[in-house]
Amino acid sequence: MTTRLPESEFDDRLAAVRERIDTSDADAGVWFGATSIEYLTGFAHIQTERPVVLAVADDTVALTVPRLEVERAEAVDSIDRVDSYFDYPGGNPIETAAETLSDLGVESVAADGDGAPGVMGYQGPPLSEFLAVDTQDWVSRMRWAKSDAEIELIRESAKWANLGHRYLADYTEVGSHPATVSQRASTDASRAMLDTLGDRYIERARGDGPVHAGYISGEETALPHGHTPNQRLREGDVLITGATANVDGYVSELERTMFVGDPSDRQREYFEIMLEAQTIAIDALGPGVALEYVDSEVTAYFEEQGVADLAQHHVGHNIGLGAHEPPYIDSGWADHCEDDHTNYDAADASMEPGHVYTIEPGIYTDTEGYRHSDTIAIADDGIEWLTYYPRELEANVVRP
Amino acid sequence: MTTRLPESEFDDRLAAVRERIDTSDADAGVWFGATSIEYLTGFAHIQTERPVVLAVADDTVALTVPRLEVERAEAVDSIDRVDSYFDYPGGNPIETAAETLSDLGVESVAADGDGAPGVMGYQGPPLSEFLAVDTQDWVSRMRWAKSDAEIELIRESAKWANLGHRYLADYTEVGSHPATVSQRASTDASRAMLDTLGDRYIERARGDGPVHAGYISGEETALPHGHTPNQRLREGDVLITGATANVDGYVSELERTMFVGDPSDRQREYFEIMLEAQTIAIDALGPGVALEYVDSEVTAYFEEQGVADLAQHHVGHNIGLGAHEPPYIDSGWADHCEDDHTNYDAADASMEPGHVYTIEPGIYTDTEGYRHSDTIAIADDGIEWLTYYPRELEANVVRP
Repeated sequence: MTTRLPESEFDDRLAAVRERIDTSDADAGVWFGATSIEYLTGFAHIQTERPVVLAVADDTVALTVPRLEVERAEAVDSIDRVDSYFDYPGGNPIETAAETLSDLGVESVAADGDGAPGVMGYQGPPLSEFLAVDTQDWVSRMRWAKSDAEIELIRESAKWANLGHRYLADYTEVGSHPATVSQRASTDASRAMLDTLGDRYIERARGDGPVHAGYISGEETALPHGHTPNQRLREGDVLITGATANVDGYVSELERTMFVGDPSDRQREYFEIMLEAQTIAIDALGPGVALEYVDSEVTAYFEEQGVADLAQHHVGHNIGLGAHEPPYIDSGWADHCEDDHTNYDAADASMEPGHVYTIEPGIYTDTEGYRHSDTIAIADDGIEWLTYYPRELEANVVRP
Repeated sequence: MTTRLPESEFDDRLAAVRERIDTSDADAGVWFGATSIEYLTGFAHIQTERPVVLAVADDTVALTVPRLEVERAEAVDSIDRVDSYFDYPGGNPIETAAETLSDLGVESVAADGDGAPGVMGYQGPPLSEFLAVDTQDWVSRMRWAKSDAEIELIRESAKWANLGHRYLADYTEVGSHPATVSQRASTDASRAMLDTLGDRYIERARGDGPVHAGYISGEETALPHGHTPNQRLREGDVLITGATANVDGYVSELERTMFVGDPSDRQREYFEIMLEAQTIAIDALGPGVALEYVDSEVTAYFEEQGVADLAQHHVGHNIGLGAHEPPYIDSGWADHCEDDHTNYDAADASMEPGHVYTIEPGIYTDTEGYRHSDTIAIADDGIEWLTYYPRELEANVVRP
């Protein structure tokens, strides 16, 4: 059982970006994105308007943080140097990072953006006011294929998601409130995970989690991004569930379509079409398979069944440190790889060992939705199911 | 009791941006940011790699969405036209939005960015490949001062946060697990809110919330962004709590420093310094007051008490649709307003009626932290406390 990423992973990742820096015109690599910083160093933080800046230079990994992150940054093994500003905007974060870079003898960088992202609230000078900045997207691409250790964390996540989902099913009955069932399942599964792992649990949550299990119900299921309604469960309601757990930053995704009481013939029919579509997608997965082939197999099946107009989204996406990561199992993926606006090429259009996909084709009528989601790793010679909750209809009917 | 923003608010906001468009060189305003789109129209969505694009033209408010958001977008009164692409990247989102703009006769826009934000996962053509794009930051600035209706929602949020916080205190005892106490308080307060509001409750949550109450404990409180440890509560533990509730998208912030069992003399001393710093900051608030004056009053008090080195962040921030919004109560705020990289000016350096601030000066030793946070509105002639949980030490000691 591995519940913490080994330190050697960060050595490998930093070595990989150092190779990229060596073959670039830049003296150092710079990152402003929280997930990229976590991926390269293990330093996890909540991204806000306060910039955090990672610089990877020849022999130094340097992090610039607001004062409130200093102690946590200093505790990270892979970080050699921590500089800080007091707060934003008074502390001049970008100036502080530029001084660090200057001190390291860096005159040009390859960065994941020209300064902290404005969409997170930062307004101030771009980094290019201080030194030469080229942009790169190395880490996002590196994250596509997971190492064995990363997959082991996602496997562990799927285990606790499964427990949360089992509690969801156990606590569901006619008349229960979906918010209460959801929160109770999350609470009980979280406590089981915390008590089981003990000091092997890596702290990641504030007040809630590490397991989240819940559902949307009734007509809200007709909306792929619906909300939990303030409406007690009734016989005949459809539920679309979701369960995950955070294991050292990594997540899995488990979703099921469930019924409160016996489904109607029409509900059974839609459920079986959704289930078969998911099976078709999973059967199509494997190393070397074009992502858009998997999407097109599902589309062809939906067309054959006369429900193509009930689909509202593509088949799935990669998952890991982020809940949604490229590549996407989407009909436009191959074109996207060859688009001048991406740094991908034709070789990026296919699945590779280490990719971890959610497989979640769905259909949505005017009144309810049908979607399972499973998390599946691409292996050297096939696939590995990471989630394992029962998929068939009878296992997903809640009866008194 | 108001729990839903009246439709007239969106009319007012759209009228305000139309005035800005009229005095600009652009034919229309365009937004890619989820919070700005929600602010102008009431259409709320989870921002992902799939772009959502709002265009406000002369007589049309048009929204481009992925297929999975169509029904929700069409249900929004303030939106006149909904166009959709199937999914990202295959559906060509920016091309779809550009076609809509062309169809509306728009040749130039003032946008909140030149395309969807890459930090959310979008990679593709910028909008400026299709038409002339100037950038603007109108909505972020408009959101500083809240209307009476917005403040009423934040007041309602503070009420349910207070209940969640009361449950937190009631459920806390030596030996309890902080994750379980937190999740139980959130669950029970959420259910009370849902049952009290009934059909006046606006659905905003998926599986969890609308009330979140929780705490970090023990040594984690020494870190302003600490995590909930996997460690049962012990006599002598310090807790830093947090409670909020989502009311039609608006939030408040309530935090308290609490003690499990009698605090030591040294703990009492730090608590009283923190409490006095918060009082000093609150006494300094008011219309026309320079934001950095409030921060400097706290800094001067910390210096006088010999604890300035224990401060790790500024006094607070504006709050509303976002949990962190400008302006910030920060020593560098006046300089920031006059910085060429912002669109602010000297007049923006002061508090105005309708601003809603968190007031949360903190001090942090090597082993524990001390911070209260209250949410306070600036009124025409003073201030209004929106949060109201007791602040004094005795009310925040948990005894057997």
